[in-house]
Amino acid sequence: MALAEIGALPGGGVDRQALSPGETEAWRLVIAWGADAGMEPSTDPAGNLFLTLPGRDRALPPLVMGSHLDTQPTGGKFDGAFGVLAALEAAQSLGAIPARDVTVVAWMNEEGSRFAPGMMGSEAFAGVRPLDDILAAGDAAGTTVAEALAALHAAFPAIPRRPLGFPIGFYLEPHIEQGPVLEQRHAPIGIVTGIQGKKTWEMVVQGQEGHAGTLDMADRHDALAAFARMADAMFREVGTTDSIIKLTIGLVRMEPNAPSVVPARLTFRIDLRHPDNAVLDAAGERLEVLAATHAPPCTVQVRRLVDAPSNDFDPGLRACIAAAAEALGHAAMPILSAAGHDARHMAPLCPAAMIFIPCRDGVSHAEHEWAEPAHVAAGAAVLAEVAAGLVLEPAA
Amino acid sequence: MALAEIGALPGGGVDRQALSPGETEAWRLVIAWGADAGMEPSTDPAGNLFLTLPGRDRALPPLVMGSHLDTQPTGGKFDGAFGVLAALEAAQSLGAIPARDVTVVAWMNEEGSRFAPGMMGSEAFAGVRPLDDILAAGDAAGTTVAEALAALHAAFPAIPRRPLGFPIGFYLEPHIEQGPVLEQRHAPIGIVTGIQGKKTWEMVVQGQEGHAGTLDMADRHDALAAFARMADAMFREVGTTDSIIKLTIGLVRMEPNAPSVVPARLTFRIDLRHPDNAVLDAAGERLEVLAATHAPPCTVQVRRLVDAPSNDFDPGLRACIAAAAEALGHAAMPILSAAGHDARHMAPLCPAAMIFIPCRDGVSHAEHEWAEPAHVAAGAAVLAEVAAGLVLEPAA
Repeated sequence: MALAEIGALPGGGVDRQALSPGETEAWRLVIAWGADAGMEPSTDPAGNLFLTLPGRDRALPPLVMGSHLDTQPTGGKFDGAFGVLAALEAAQSLGAIPARDVTVVAWMNEEGSRFAPGMMGSEAFAGVRPLDDILAAGDAAGTTVAEALAALHAAFPAIPRRPLGFPIGFYLEPHIEQGPVLEQRHAPIGIVTGIQGKKTWEMVVQGQEGHAGTLDMADRHDALAAFARMADAMFREVGTTDSIIKLTIGLVRMEPNAPSVVPARLTFRIDLRHPDNAVLDAAGERLEVLAATHAPPCTVQVRRLVDAPSNDFDPGLRACIAAAAEALGHAAMPILSAAGHDARHMAPLCPAAMIFIPCRDGVSHAEHEWAEPAHVAAGAAVLAEVAAGLVLEPAA
Repeated sequence: MALAEIGALPGGGVDRQALSPGETEAWRLVIAWGADAGMEPSTDPAGNLFLTLPGRDRALPPLVMGSHLDTQPTGGKFDGAFGVLAALEAAQSLGAIPARDVTVVAWMNEEGSRFAPGMMGSEAFAGVRPLDDILAAGDAAGTTVAEALAALHAAFPAIPRRPLGFPIGFYLEPHIEQGPVLEQRHAPIGIVTGIQGKKTWEMVVQGQEGHAGTLDMADRHDALAAFARMADAMFREVGTTDSIIKLTIGLVRMEPNAPSVVPARLTFRIDLRHPDNAVLDAAGERLEVLAATHAPPCTVQVRRLVDAPSNDFDPGLRACIAAAAEALGHAAMPILSAAGHDARHMAPLCPAAMIFIPCRDGVSHAEHEWAEPAHVAAGAAVLAEVAAGLVLEPAA
């Protein structure tokens, strides 16, 4: 709740954009909490934040746990923040010097709302995307990641830098489910089996501006009319696929966007998800065909942004989570993650897994996003139990 | 060209929004030009600017001529500006004291791009819309007309105020055609018969935001998906009406407008025009039905903004324009105005008419809008000839 005051919105939600003054303030708060628990802050060239509880053998690759501190423009209190704070709590509660370093992480720009696409910090760390590409990305005001990151880093001049991609022993990410399944099944713990595949595009419909009162319909190159044809056809198309495919056109920018001017240009983003990679690929191809088919007399530029297939999390860690939940008396169930998470990019580097807790009515990316305190505590306790099992000697 | 430097855009166009610092600068320039010609500036509570050349009998209602100084966000050099400057030129060129006052007018916010809908100044003057409604309208940044107008008036403290709706003897408005007809017919002068009818709406599609990766399509209230259905259906509908109906959705605002959030709300503006009032009314009703039909599971709020039927200009003044064009050797033809103009609101108050000149390729509301100097001169000369006929004694 203290963290949610940073970027608080009147409706109870949070607007804390990546690399914003709000994120600077959030760093300050969690660094202070980490310091109270004997944890050392560090960062890397991609703006990821690490808080490390030193272990006995500092040469061993650390146990890394966490999530992200940025939110959607009208986001909630739990998406991302729960993962970072549960990790901090789990590290603090170990009660003994761990066998290896235990590092809490807050990945840079998971949400992708200020700078697109998201998961920039984990992508850079894992080498999925070149750092230079990420640093060059700009927000709507023209500020680049490089500029915003320099401002963030300048606020913390004393914090040491680590390289991208340092070795990791294990990775654990706690998160709210962002869907209704755990709540409906009365299971406070979700053992995440994997993350559904996701593709995103930016498409630009180029038409020609003109006067709304004088230009004949037959002579128009109306970017909005072409977009309406495309978007309607795309929604109809996915409607015939199956009930679990998900299509979102979440961002639209029109130019010049004046009431009596025929729109000259419309830029939009598509987000398509499905757990079956073959279905996802086929649907993605059909969307590209529909864009090309419905564009004339306008033209359309199609740029693929994200192409992330489905993945499976580590079976050993999933078994540890199941055992910890059972030991603590919390009902648990396997669940597929419909949302993307930074853990996607850690899974190829080391054994990785995720722990989900329920959120009310499955609502997320919204101001009234909510998780019950009992579920928050259960998730943090299971994480702490798994962490203790990984880094503490069994009691004699 | 000097006026077009105020708000000049890199592509050759002009962005000079109503009641902006740019309009303040434009007032300063035309007031100075008017002063050089012995004209007295005044304004009214709606922010209209008047420059008056005093006549012999100041009790007679004046001849008023002009147009507007504001532009679209990516507008051209001629739309509006030509009318004001041609009127200034015609008044200057009379060469004798006129029988009655000759007043050049620049109406406030004709374009309606910063504050919607447009023609606020002439509507307030004619009593078509209450001044309080107009003063309360806000721009995208939340600034009201009242606030922006106070700033404009504060820049000209010495200028006297006149009441709204003072009596007018005759009204003449020169303007570029904003369509291709005069250019195609090689006629430098268009004698405007009337203005086609126009209806505008603001519609707000209300859905529910949610996570793009987790919320099942069947459970979504996606404001963009509903809008795409509506907009596509509306364009198909007008496509079956006739070839001269015109439908534009020129402005779209989506919230929260983030790539991985299901859109919660989409606000858009519709502009519908047709010269036949019965066709316009019927098509307008069908658009409202389509909005309601395609909204579910979202809801739609429908607000009518402008409902302006077609009108006819004064036959006597049209005959004067024809005679003046013939006397000066400029080919002239009758033409219907497809675009709306402030003259629409003067026509019920006094004999009113409009003079059109060609613009290149019929393009307007665009940076490359252009009118040939010869046509600009012809339009101003015909206006001056008509004005002289109305306010000067015939030579003995």
